[in-house]
Amino acid sequence: MNTFSIAIHGGAGTILKSEITLELEKAYHAGLKDALMAGYAMLEKNGSALDAVKAAVVKLEDNALFNAGKGSVFTKTGTHEMDASLMDGKTKDAGAVASVKNIRNPVLLADAVMQFSNHVLLSGEGAMDFAREQKIPTEPDDYFFTDFRYKQWQQLQSSDKVALDHSTASQLSGPGKMGTVGAVACDKFGNVAAATSTGGMTNKNYGRIGDTAIIGAGTYADNATAAISCTGHGEPFIKAVAAFSVISLMEHKKDTLQNAMKEIVHQKLLQFDGEGGMIGVDAQGNVSMQFNSEGMYRAMKSSDGKEEVMIYKD
Amino acid sequence: MNTFSIAIHGGAGTILKSEITLELEKAYHAGLKDALMAGYAMLEKNGSALDAVKAAVVKLEDNALFNAGKGSVFTKTGTHEMDASLMDGKTKDAGAVASVKNIRNPVLLADAVMQFSNHVLLSGEGAMDFAREQKIPTEPDDYFFTDFRYKQWQQLQSSDKVALDHSTASQLSGPGKMGTVGAVACDKFGNVAAATSTGGMTNKNYGRIGDTAIIGAGTYADNATAAISCTGHGEPFIKAVAAFSVISLMEHKKDTLQNAMKEIVHQKLLQFDGEGGMIGVDAQGNVSMQFNSEGMYRAMKSSDGKEEVMIYKD
Repeated sequence: MNTFSIAIHGGAGTILKSEITLELEKAYHAGLKDALMAGYAMLEKNGSALDAVKAAVVKLEDNALFNAGKGSVFTKTGTHEMDASLMDGKTKDAGAVASVKNIRNPVLLADAVMQFSNHVLLSGEGAMDFAREQKIPTEPDDYFFTDFRYKQWQQLQSSDKVALDHSTASQLSGPGKMGTVGAVACDKFGNVAAATSTGGMTNKNYGRIGDTAIIGAGTYADNATAAISCTGHGEPFIKAVAAFSVISLMEHKKDTLQNAMKEIVHQKLLQFDGEGGMIGVDAQGNVSMQFNSEGMYRAMKSSDGKEEVMIYKD
Repeated sequence: MNTFSIAIHGGAGTILKSEITLELEKAYHAGLKDALMAGYAMLEKNGSALDAVKAAVVKLEDNALFNAGKGSVFTKTGTHEMDASLMDGKTKDAGAVASVKNIRNPVLLADAVMQFSNHVLLSGEGAMDFAREQKIPTEPDDYFFTDFRYKQWQQLQSSDKVALDHSTASQLSGPGKMGTVGAVACDKFGNVAAATSTGGMTNKNYGRIGDTAIIGAGTYADNATAAISCTGHGEPFIKAVAAFSVISLMEHKKDTLQNAMKEIVHQKLLQFDGEGGMIGVDAQGNVSMQFNSEGMYRAMKSSDGKEEVMIYKD
């Protein structure tokens, strides 16, 4: 039996211990642990890597602390637009949605696109029509209203600034982070999968699509190498083709997952001014979590006994 | 002075000499030649690779024979939705638009996104709002109405089938091809650039985004390696991260452009059932045009005297 493992992230950015209360820190730890265990439980009972990443991301989307699903930030016009994608390393099939509204769990809509459409990426009203056909659960606007996000938006609304959730913590009412959630897993059978979901950037233009919706940029999975989920400033991650760049290094240069991720996060992404991080798991169940920002909400657990839930560098 | 060169494509698919009239063949040749020379003229007068690919793609978008701009196919609901992207290999900056309507030249909107927004990819109404801000020329619906495309759509409309422009030529009133246009160029200064534009698939769901809008999948450019523009069945090209896969082979395995493109088009894409092709140019001005379909509308011209305008395999 293969070592099985899961890793999750809840965003990266300027997360400083000095700017976060002990109470909030505990809440983040609890949210991460809850999502981690939901995914790990799937793997333990012989579930697939794909089922595990979906279970973990659903938990993160349902938690208002993270910028995805319920906790999504406000766009310039005061709406909530979400992107998500997932990929199955066994089949190399993939699904993604961009600029969707009122979908409770965008990761499950991305899964439906993969399973039940002829397409990989659906956006906007077209994606929401497809969601209705597939009876994907929706929520009213007020489900996505959180006081914390509303204050963030109000502070930026009159400006043309966008915020990566909030990496300029001092301007905003909470810990600075880039808002994306994601999960990668390797199951007992050596299959890997990755999923990523986001509410985007506070005060972004509507219609902006970041790396989270893009296979190759924010998400990639291939049993021959690894599964990757990214978080950070979407535009540099798109131009760097961040997730697939790790895959390419492993495929062509036979790099380990850890070395490939270090090269992309600490060298290549910096050339694009790409602040953020990524999590990865290879088909042997090895996990790596790398970031070039101050912090990254992250957690991992594997069947060989390792378990971590972390926020800061150390 | 660097050898300078340009290559363009007008789509790939089941293009058979037996199914195309001599008159139509001449029209395609003339359209390709016209676009080729518009781009080449830019390079001759010391223009940048980026200016050259824009000039060539604008000509292809303005020609009703090709599925982009004016000649865009009909979606399931009878609208025209277009995607486009471009990338500058010198700066590795990029811009893209998805699901835009009434934009005369989507490639110029993608260029404006690159130059004047903080984003890489804008979609739908958000992209069109940005177009209005930037005073990008629009056209009324009837500009995009061509009798030929309307008949295609009518034949598919009652079904759930989509058509890659038309690769099943016998069902449809014209030569089978996958509808995308694109250009790659290398200028006198050794800079490369790529641009791609499409009207999508006949009878597609609205909101579907194909590889043409996606940096890494349909388009990529990096002076260190090459510029690539793809055409074909978008979904496999997204999952294969087609354009960037060529770049990775050149970067990590030191493959030539020609060998890297052959491996991706004739091996990797087939694993994803990815029918189509791509054009590429490296920073020394070498051009390659590869496809795994019956034909690809294509042309190239370089300062060392080579010039080709071709449709079929030979």
